[in-house]
Amino acid sequence: MWHEYPTLAPELASALAMIEKQITTNNTPVAKAIMEMINGGGKLLRPAYCLLFSRFQDVDREKMIALAAAIETLHTATLIHDDIIDKSPTRRNQVTIQKQFGPDTAVYAGDYLFVVCFKLLSHYASSLRSIQQDSGSMEKILKGELDQMATRYQTKITIDDYLKQVSGKTGQLFALSCFIGAYESGSSPTFAKNAEKIGMNIGIAFQLLDDILDYTSDDDTLGKPVCEDVRSGVYSAPLILAMQRNRQAFLPLLAKKDQITDAEMNELRQLVIHHQGVEQAYAMAQKRTEQAIAGLQKLPAGAAQDDLIRLTQSLLNRKA
Amino acid sequence: MWHEYPTLAPELASALAMIEKQITTNNTPVAKAIMEMINGGGKLLRPAYCLLFSRFQDVDREKMIALAAAIETLHTATLIHDDIIDKSPTRRNQVTIQKQFGPDTAVYAGDYLFVVCFKLLSHYASSLRSIQQDSGSMEKILKGELDQMATRYQTKITIDDYLKQVSGKTGQLFALSCFIGAYESGSSPTFAKNAEKIGMNIGIAFQLLDDILDYTSDDDTLGKPVCEDVRSGVYSAPLILAMQRNRQAFLPLLAKKDQITDAEMNELRQLVIHHQGVEQAYAMAQKRTEQAIAGLQKLPAGAAQDDLIRLTQSLLNRKA
Repeated sequence: MWHEYPTLAPELASALAMIEKQITTNNTPVAKAIMEMINGGGKLLRPAYCLLFSRFQDVDREKMIALAAAIETLHTATLIHDDIIDKSPTRRNQVTIQKQFGPDTAVYAGDYLFVVCFKLLSHYASSLRSIQQDSGSMEKILKGELDQMATRYQTKITIDDYLKQVSGKTGQLFALSCFIGAYESGSSPTFAKNAEKIGMNIGIAFQLLDDILDYTSDDDTLGKPVCEDVRSGVYSAPLILAMQRNRQAFLPLLAKKDQITDAEMNELRQLVIHHQGVEQAYAMAQKRTEQAIAGLQKLPAGAAQDDLIRLTQSLLNRKA
Repeated sequence: MWHEYPTLAPELASALAMIEKQITTNNTPVAKAIMEMINGGGKLLRPAYCLLFSRFQDVDREKMIALAAAIETLHTATLIHDDIIDKSPTRRNQVTIQKQFGPDTAVYAGDYLFVVCFKLLSHYASSLRSIQQDSGSMEKILKGELDQMATRYQTKITIDDYLKQVSGKTGQLFALSCFIGAYESGSSPTFAKNAEKIGMNIGIAFQLLDDILDYTSDDDTLGKPVCEDVRSGVYSAPLILAMQRNRQAFLPLLAKKDQITDAEMNELRQLVIHHQGVEQAYAMAQKRTEQAIAGLQKLPAGAAQDDLIRLTQSLLNRKA
């Protein structure tokens, strides 16, 4: 995805190398598993936005690369812990750490990456302000996760509940990436706050697309099993929106909870598509993308603005 | 334990109240479980050392209370995650979060507390220096945990391996508590480095005592099941030292790994005691305590020094 961006590609490669240098545990299998995950073809969107938002200023690139690395590290930590919760066997077409080494190792591996993130931040951020922003965002992310756990298997979840959870999870992390890129490169606090708002819309659009792909893609393209969320009781936009059209059609299938068979899951996917759940969710993603692009269009013209608009637009068309 | 210290008790109570104010998740059962754990009669030794080491300077007490709260929050986060790994049913005579809500919730609850810790630190620390120290210590703690996982059920573990792991776990957190107390209250970097060294010895002595109690106490007094460590493959000082005397006596029992019965576990405990494992470990704890007290005796005389010496001495005589 970011390979098309010649200014971004080498910096993202440097960020990955910087993370690799930080992983110094003697537990070699775990270090290897973490690095496979880091280098496993993730989209690197969060560090990409951080780096792009730093390009409106003339700033030390190594510093920004380190902060982008911190953000990707944080993201990977949350993925490792999410995989425990979801008991996911694969991600990015690789066996997850929880599956390979057990949930125990995955707990500490995620914790370890959280710490590496704060270590990078505390060494490269210019003030306590970024750490405050970072821990404030992380707090919202974790509160979002805990709220989501409390609403698992609740068929009465509304699209507003969903949007609140998504803002608190994916939205926050994209918002943080844009904020750190802008703020730490020396842009004004107003500019940074604006970047944060744009990032929130990008993140929400991104999550909507992710949840759509869960209904329209297949395991291989996605690099992880589709519809795992439904099985574990996390109901996302396509399902919620389809249920608004015909609630009764879904209840018997959802009542099976995690005992739902693959055939029933397929039936549920077809129902979601039939009741325009995917279409409606896509319209929402489109609207959030438009809002983000409207914000980006007000930024100073130049290569950074061009790349930001192009990248944000392209996220709507992704297949995985 | 700290109730005997009139200057400390109200500040520790304030630190607990400050943590409570930070726990704002809407997931009420989890918030309640976290607070029960925080208020569950933990020894509060880490925040106590932080506060005592800050008393050599005239410093804003609210700031130091917040930093002590951050340290206890971090400690609680690691306990919640440790309980997942060890599948512990009880701690401090309460049902653990992982047992009550499942490992999933425990993962996020621990993550949430990690974040609350960094939030407090980033708002109350006076510079990035403390966050660097904090994330550096946490990195060592997590690397210690990951190393320990890699050596589970290894009967060839030496006392040096054990001491390395203990320094990286309990030692680091006590060292950090003392460092933050000294450094953030405005003592010199040399003083703070010295506090850190003293804290390391206190932490190692503390862990040795903990591991001794695992062989000499009972479930009720300890507030958690005894000898759980052995069952999960973590071999501590009393066992390692006893095995130096008669390795063959232990191998058949240890070969049962987590399938060891309660009767066999009892047999193992008796063997450890018989081969002077407890006595030798106690002698090590005594030596570390003496080293710590020798360090404390060089500090400026006064109430802070007195309390530090008295508290450190008393840790050798604890029963839980």
